[in-house]
Amino acid sequence: MEAKYQPAGLLIVVSGPSGVGKGTVCHSLRQRVPTLTYSVSATTRSPREGEQDGLNYFFKSHYQFKQMIEHDELIEWAEYVGNYYGTPRKFVENSLAEGRDVLLEIDVQGALQVKKSFPEGVFIFLLPPTFDDLRKRIENRGSETPKTLDHRLTAASEEVKQLHYYDYVVINDEVEQASERIQSIIVAEHCRRERILINH
Amino acid sequence: MEAKYQPAGLLIVVSGPSGVGKGTVCHSLRQRVPTLTYSVSATTRSPREGEQDGLNYFFKSHYQFKQMIEHDELIEWAEYVGNYYGTPRKFVENSLAEGRDVLLEIDVQGALQVKKSFPEGVFIFLLPPTFDDLRKRIENRGSETPKTLDHRLTAASEEVKQLHYYDYVVINDEVEQASERIQSIIVAEHCRRERILINH
Repeated sequence: MEAKYQPAGLLIVVSGPSGVGKGTVCHSLRQRVPTLTYSVSATTRSPREGEQDGLNYFFKSHYQFKQMIEHDELIEWAEYVGNYYGTPRKFVENSLAEGRDVLLEIDVQGALQVKKSFPEGVFIFLLPPTFDDLRKRIENRGSETPKTLDHRLTAASEEVKQLHYYDYVVINDEVEQASERIQSIIVAEHCRRERILINH
Repeated sequence: MEAKYQPAGLLIVVSGPSGVGKGTVCHSLRQRVPTLTYSVSATTRSPREGEQDGLNYFFKSHYQFKQMIEHDELIEWAEYVGNYYGTPRKFVENSLAEGRDVLLEIDVQGALQVKKSFPEGVFIFLLPPTFDDLRKRIENRGSETPKTLDHRLTAASEEVKQLHYYDYVVINDEVEQASERIQSIIVAEHCRRERILINH
């Protein structure tokens, strides 16, 4: 008999309402787990100074992006203020096959799309301790009017209803603690019985 | 809305074939996670020098032990060379209710008994990297004849067939790494979606 951990990587999806702190927590997580591969998005928006194709984004024309949608080359996509953003399937699949864990930081709608292609992914919902806390965080950014703030809180409240599609909930009370919890989830998931290979 | 982690503790069951190193790994785990409560067994054997009732064991007469079995006060029990050993239900249930995670280090037969009472427990199977490795460990103890060694390896091979009852498999290639993995499993299990309480 010989026992070993499955060589394929895990798709780690970190999601949650906007304003909860996904970016900050994922940044901290990448410091902790430098071997994590960050999924690179495709977009139709123009590169900003210093941004490199294939590193920050895969930059595409509108025509190219629509071709990718048609050929099912994106595991999720969305439009924001006239530009398209999406997650290329090939990059994720190749990274997983090479044994790398892939981190996808994504909104709730996107995560539910991803789940259709990767039901075996590890879906983590980042939650604020309270809605009051979420309100304060969004207010502190200072970029919202009272009306858009209300709109975002209503949206967040709707998004929390999708919680049952997720495997884990991490409460973002403190960034370092939240990213440490996600690190533990990654280690634990590699130990799940169904991911262990035993040759008799 | 308010989100929080469930206040009840987790029952962590660390099991595996004899010789795999459960004791060493659990010792290391307790150093890492000092808040873990170690389940105290009941036994009919006599106390050894320095052993304290309620700390090392709950010492019981044969009559008392049989009463405990009859009144379903043990979540598992077994007989070894004329003495009884078992896990008192009350101690485990009280500790969990008080919010403490309880560690149970136990053989495979015992673990399967525990699963009947605590299906929501976290069942971890400690596995040697290979059977050759297990053979070497048992041989190094120097306490086995070739015949009893063969017997133990056959038993281990049968026990590995019970793997599908477990949630996690930890390969004990290196003690510190194995105990660190179990520590991560405990953190991750507290974050499982079904263990999060949300008040709307």
